Amino acid sequence: MNCLVGQSGGPTSVINSSLSGVIQAAFDNNFRIFGCKNGIEGLLNDNLVEFNKEKFENVNGKERLKKRPSSILGSCRFRLPDDMEDEIYVKIFDQLNKHDISIFVYIGGNDSMDTVLKLNKYMKYKGINWVNICGSPKTIDNDLMLMDHSPGFGSAAKFIVNTIVDIRKDVDIYKRKTVTIVEIMGRNAGWLAASSLLANYNRRRKIVNLVYLSEMKINKEQIIEDIKKAHEKEDNLIIVISEGFVDAKNNFKREIERSYDEGFNHPIISGMSRRLSEYIYQQLDIKTKAVELSIVQRVNHLISKTDSEEAFNLGYKSLEISKNNTNMVPVIIRELSEEYKPRYEYIESGIIANKEKIVPAEWFETQEKLERKIIEYALPLIKGEVSQDYEDGILQYISLGEIIN
Amino acid sequence: MNCLVGQSGGPTSVINSSLSGVIQAAFDNNFRIFGCKNGIEGLLNDNLVEFNKEKFENVNGKERLKKRPSSILGSCRFRLPDDMEDEIYVKIFDQLNKHDISIFVYIGGNDSMDTVLKLNKYMKYKGINWVNICGSPKTIDNDLMLMDHSPGFGSAAKFIVNTIVDIRKDVDIYKRKTVTIVEIMGRNAGWLAASSLLANYNRRRKIVNLVYLSEMKINKEQIIEDIKKAHEKEDNLIIVISEGFVDAKNNFKREIERSYDEGFNHPIISGMSRRLSEYIYQQLDIKTKAVELSIVQRVNHLISKTDSEEAFNLGYKSLEISKNNTNMVPVIIRELSEEYKPRYEYIESGIIANKEKIVPAEWFETQEKLERKIIEYALPLIKGEVSQDYEDGILQYISLGEIIN
Repeated sequence: MNCLVGQSGGPTSVINSSLSGVIQAAFDNNFRIFGCKNGIEGLLNDNLVEFNKEKFENVNGKERLKKRPSSILGSCRFRLPDDMEDEIYVKIFDQLNKHDISIFVYIGGNDSMDTVLKLNKYMKYKGINWVNICGSPKTIDNDLMLMDHSPGFGSAAKFIVNTIVDIRKDVDIYKRKTVTIVEIMGRNAGWLAASSLLANYNRRRKIVNLVYLSEMKINKEQIIEDIKKAHEKEDNLIIVISEGFVDAKNNFKREIERSYDEGFNHPIISGMSRRLSEYIYQQLDIKTKAVELSIVQRVNHLISKTDSEEAFNLGYKSLEISKNNTNMVPVIIRELSEEYKPRYEYIESGIIANKEKIVPAEWFETQEKLERKIIEYALPLIKGEVSQDYEDGILQYISLGEIIN
Repeated sequence: MNCLVGQSGGPTSVINSSLSGVIQAAFDNNFRIFGCKNGIEGLLNDNLVEFNKEKFENVNGKERLKKRPSSILGSCRFRLPDDMEDEIYVKIFDQLNKHDISIFVYIGGNDSMDTVLKLNKYMKYKGINWVNICGSPKTIDNDLMLMDHSPGFGSAAKFIVNTIVDIRKDVDIYKRKTVTIVEIMGRNAGWLAASSLLANYNRRRKIVNLVYLSEMKINKEQIIEDIKKAHEKEDNLIIVISEGFVDAKNNFKREIERSYDEGFNHPIISGMSRRLSEYIYQQLDIKTKAVELSIVQRVNHLISKTDSEEAFNLGYKSLEISKNNTNMVPVIIRELSEEYKPRYEYIESGIIANKEKIVPAEWFETQEKLERKIIEYALPLIKGEVSQDYEDGILQYISLGEIIN
């Protein structure tokens, strides 16, 4: 049996853990497993590679893929048309047929699950039943519906938390009142910005003082009041904001940058930390600094072991479920137990596609409540470190060439 | 005998390694060792702590300090006046006298060595000989005169190199022509930006495609030509620039930010990556992205073991030389050998104070030459990793409270 796997959408630090899971599952079933470069584009352009079982085992591909951040097969942002008569569908299934693919697993976020959904709609429409197409979920944003959390989120959160622990060491060295604003990814969902509060866990003093999420509607005057109050206890404040944060009255105009993500038309926003930094300086005449963690937060060698293992399991289960089902996506549910324990379930791709899960409003009624809630929720997800390999002081990752024919 | 140690200027990831060396040397000599908080300010304000030998040994302070980035004693930017009659000198020596200090070691960069120099000038002027005041050098910028390299540089370079290895993984995932510009610290000296080229060591393809240093005078039109040429071979380019880079004709106006470093009046510059990113987009109509590594590059848990050990040795030697000498600074010289081998020498503070060493012009005659030169020079300095301690996925550093009375 021939299987195909592709990666799509923005990268995460553990998206190759899911790939590793898919490959391992295929080999455990004695299936052949191909990868398409740059997602669905590679399928259309006949840009396929075949993973080699012997090589994969010999170079410890299973574990080394788990350490290698960002889509090793490349990615794409490619939105399939709603029109089921569009010729692209014919092309895609011609390609799948040509390579005799019986299982196609697509690793991606809510946009990529839209691809899985549409391909399955087309299959139903045309009565195609010689291939099963399922999804394996990922996103650093943690905004996938119905899942307790998304693979990729834990590692991004781990990087953010530990980077802010270091930033705290930096900002504390001078005796003066300052405000450092750290801008975190998250257009509409503030999960990652909220997770910075994990840095306060088990500390006698606050590493992160204030957090403003995309979901919050706060007047800019309120921010100044929050800062004044916090400055009564602490000289150097660290404020974390989501890139999508805007104040309640929209007085901070979103700095929508010129570029738009191709295909899905999401505006690329950033610069709110600089905007807020300038405003605070004007109002309070104190030293302010804006720090954007930028793309480094989504693709980083500081990987959560918990996240990495879960991403692997989801990949593995995606292939397993595809043996007898189509249009399914494995998701993580949290067991109601004292200790953190994930359970895996399966849902239809339509439940995830094109939707976003945001931080519940009741979580951020107060900063204290947000901290309590996010620690309870996200602390287990950043646990454990994945050891990396260095040579001459430089990270050495596995390359695709080492594991394909 | 009572010793005093202080930390001054911008932080580095190994400035506490030097502190560890000073403390260890004091204990090895059976001296008492005090630390002044926030550099010379703490001495003036009587804000002193005493390191406790038993505690230091019990909690493994020697090794744990080496892992803890950024000045644990705090820092200051405090420029002593030229006027030797200024009352501040009287105050400082009154304080040293009050605490019966015989040795004072000041850990800092070229500005802080100016403090060491002036205090020694005053001592000479007043005939003070009951205290020896020496420096222990540090700076991420690597711009200290006469030293082969500066402690702090290797760890900042290591962080930059490995972060760019990750950024390369991120930018490669889409098939399209892009330019990602990474802005690195270095106002006048481009050592750190140049060291990003270490990422190309032993690779079949370039991680970093082009580097523009503060020292280079390049027309902006040349940059566009460089990009066009590089795009013939590679879709996704990574360009690294020093924050102080300006084009030859000054057509890129430096975006001098409103803030100035207190005391020493260095302009805080940044934003050149955004400026250049906009320009390239206008000229070539391709996706561009600006990434500033910001303060995260100078204070980070990813520490070079080589750098950390050397910083420790310099701290140790600073205290040792202070037993019988004043106004001295231990420096690192490189042995002329096949294998990298540091040798330690001593120079007078005046040789380092207020001066800057920049990258030699002959090094950047071509991009290829710069890469060859910097690999030869800086590769040994990023070698080795310092293992960090995590609890619940979060970095745990030593606190000052664990090692003082």
